[in-house]
Parts: sequence; C-alpha cells; structure tokens
Amino acid sequence: MYTAAGRSGNLSKLATYTAKLPYAYATGIFPSHALLDANPTCAKRLLLHSTSLDSEGCLALKARCEMLGIRHEIADAALQRISRKENCYAAIVFDKYDSTLHNDMPHIVLHHPSDMGNLGTILRTCLGFGFIDIAIVRPAADFFDPRVVRASMGALFQLRIHAYDTFEAYRTDYPNHALFPFMLDGAVPLQHVAADTQKPYALIFGNEAAGLPACFASMGQAVRIVHSNRIDSLNLAVAVSIAAYTFAKTDL
Amino acid sequence: MYTAAGRSGNLSKLATYTAKLPYAYATGIFPSHALLDANPTCAKRLLLHSTSLDSEGCLALKARCEMLGIRHEIADAALQRISRKENCYAAIVFDKYDSTLHNDMPHIVLHHPSDMGNLGTILRTCLGFGFIDIAIVRPAADFFDPRVVRASMGALFQLRIHAYDTFEAYRTDYPNHALFPFMLDGAVPLQHVAADTQKPYALIFGNEAAGLPACFASMGQAVRIVHSNRIDSLNLAVAVSIAAYTFAKTDL
Repeated sequence: MYTAAGRSGNLSKLATYTAKLPYAYATGIFPSHALLDANPTCAKRLLLHSTSLDSEGCLALKARCEMLGIRHEIADAALQRISRKENCYAAIVFDKYDSTLHNDMPHIVLHHPSDMGNLGTILRTCLGFGFIDIAIVRPAADFFDPRVVRASMGALFQLRIHAYDTFEAYRTDYPNHALFPFMLDGAVPLQHVAADTQKPYALIFGNEAAGLPACFASMGQAVRIVHSNRIDSLNLAVAVSIAAYTFAKTDL
Repeated sequence: MYTAAGRSGNLSKLATYTAKLPYAYATGIFPSHALLDANPTCAKRLLLHSTSLDSEGCLALKARCEMLGIRHEIADAALQRISRKENCYAAIVFDKYDSTLHNDMPHIVLHHPSDMGNLGTILRTCLGFGFIDIAIVRPAADFFDPRVVRASMGALFQLRIHAYDTFEAYRTDYPNHALFPFMLDGAVPLQHVAADTQKPYALIFGNEAAGLPACFASMGQAVRIVHSNRIDSLNLAVAVSIAAYTFAKTDL
C-alpha cells in the first residue's frame, strides 16, 4: 500500500526523529488520540510498551487502532529512542501531512520561531483560544518534532499548520488578512487595538531573540504589549498567549 | 569575614548548585548585573571564563565588582559545572537572601509550582507587568536554582520573593489582600473581574498538573480564564501571564 521508500508503513526499524523523515511520532496516549481524531488516514503503526499493555489507556488506544485497521506492535526500544527522556508507553507513527489554512479565519503567523518547547506551548494556547490556522515562516523549529508534539499536548494535530519559506509567500496566499505585527516598538498598545478588529486578521510574531524585522512595522497595524522597562521583552509564548487571549476574548 | 561553615566566601571549591547550599549563582552578564543592582552586599565572588576576559561585558562587570570590593577569579571548570549546558562566561556567587513582601502592593501567589523553566518565565513576566511581590508555597521549585535564574533572565533579583510552607502562613502575614484564586472552574471569567479591582489583591495559581485544591474556590473570588474545551488547560506560565497582563493593564 505504501510504496514510497522510507514511508512509515514499510520500515522495519523506526529512526530517531529528524526533520528529514517523511514520518513522525505522536508520543503518549492523549496525543495519539488527537492524531487519530484529526488525521486517521495518516496513522500507520501503533507502538506499545510491554510494561503497560494492560493499562486502560493502552487498551483503549489499541482497540481504536484495530477498528481503524492500524497494526500495533510491542516496541520498547523504539519508544525509548523516540521519546528521548520521558517514559512513553504508546506512540503512533504517522506520515507527515500538509494543511491549508482557511481564508476566512484569523491566522497566527510565527516568523522564525526556534524553540521547540515554546512552539508547542504556543500551539496549545492557540487551540485554546480558537486560533486553528497557523502559518510558520522558515527557518523555524520543525513542528512535527516530538518535542513540539509533547509541549503542545497533542494540540498540534487539531490545528491547520502550513510552513512557508518566506512571509511574502504567506501573503501571496492570503492577501486580504488585516496584519497585526507584534513588535517591541509597535505603534499601538494592545489594549487599544483589539476591540474594533474586523475579521479576518493575522497576528504576526517574530523570533524569540530577534523579534520581527523592522520592515514589518509598515505592514498593517504594528502592536506592542506594554510592559515595564525592567525587562527587555516578554517570552514569545507569553506574548502570543496574551495577544491571542485579547483578540479572542470577545468571542469567548 | 564569613565565618559560618559553607558560606560562599570561604569555599575553595564551588559546589554544583543544590537547594541546600547557603549560596547560589547568578549566571551570565545580565543576571550578574541584576544581582548587583538588587543585593550587592550578598555578592561574594565573581567568576570569569578565561576565554572572555577581554570582552566588553566581562570587563564592565569586573570593574563594577572591583568598585564594590568583590573579588574575581578565573574559574572555567566551575562555570562549566554551574551552568550545566550553556556557554557561561561570567557568574556571581552570592549568599542567598530572604525578602519580605510589601503589604500595600499586589501579590502573585504560586502554590506548588514545580517546573523550573516555567517558574523563571513567570518571574520575568511578573516583573514586566509590575508585580514585584511573589509568594511561593512549598513544596515548590527552588527559585534560586540556576535554571530558574536563567529562565527569568535575571528578573528574579528584581523581585521580592518569599517562600512559605503553607498557604495559611502566607495568609497570616497578609490577611487583608483580596484573593483571586485562578481555577479551571472559577466562578467568574477573567474579563469580568479585572476592571473593578481594588488593591491590594493577590492572584493565586496552582501547580502545573494539579491546579489549585478545590478549597480555594471559597477563598475570595475564584476566576477562570475562558478557553475552548479542546485543550485541558493552559500552560501555567501562560495563565499567570494573561492574568498579570489583564490586572495590570489599567496601570500600564
């Protein structure tokens, strides 16, 4: 069924994850279910740890996979290798997939996000505040990396995420979104901008260390989250969360 | 001058940090300056890496320490041991100190926070939104741990942090603060509570995994940050940040 070399269904030995692999891992019971909820046809194999075969969570996951025709196997060593540090009792191997953002929904655009944990936390928060459509501009952390999956608590699989090589490529696809780049010197404080926002819009955030390039200030309405000058900046996940909460608030 | 056994001024060999040590480390140029700004009398020794003695940052820090009568030394191995992973070119060894919260200021109360990185991010955000007085209820991550210091980007030293063994002990010290426990099932949504808040008040947050015990719901006004049911909860640092931003907003 899967004839392409290196596809997840064919491999006898599962590799430690790298961005180049055509497949990835949903590690843990909850992320595995989230993957099955969102993209069951991408799921190829269920890996189970021998010490937890009788646990309620593993039994339910196994039963669900059987109904979907996804084979399972005991794979203690592979689980250890994939999860790197934490105890991991179940994982689903899935073929990576692409998503298309919805044109009539608000977007979150992450420009060069580099920290895996931050990215996962951001994705979890976006889902929590109803932002389903996420554009990531490369170079960026690989959102299928198990560290991102873990930090997102499986939220990753409930989102539509698309990676672009440039911001211009994103903009070509979605020319009509009102742009709100978040910058330390953004012209308008967040508390003054969110109230009268028309949809669709895109909230844009820069890299953890560098922020957005200055040229973003002239694209749309640059926004700042006002904080005291006793800190240089907010953590990226914190900034995205405050912005997403504030823009979403009226809908909640 | 420092006669107590184990004080930082007397040790020839600096130990890898543990919570039991009477001293701790401010690792990095910026955190070192922050420590000197806040508590210069606690600073005991400046450690420098041999490869960066001529860097501008190290020279300035060294000059400042000389003016304050703090001795410096080349300590490549100690810096490596203390910082664990990242390249660290300077650190100040300081005697741990205690702080007293101000009674007329708003407080952030963290009940059993366990994640070092989260705690550091929370402290940085608190400083950014003008929350200087932080109570931590044990068991909790040790706020002098270098991992917290690093994640806080030195904000730690600009705050007044006091650890309590119980919430009741905190409450005995500050019986008049209006309490706002943040809970998943808090009675009032955040957007309806912050506008008419009188000071002083305390925003209270539970452990990353468990949240606050149910008994907190009857102490003061329990608050929830409304999010969709597609996620179980927000990350703790995200929740604290949104709450701190919202309560501080009118002052910014």
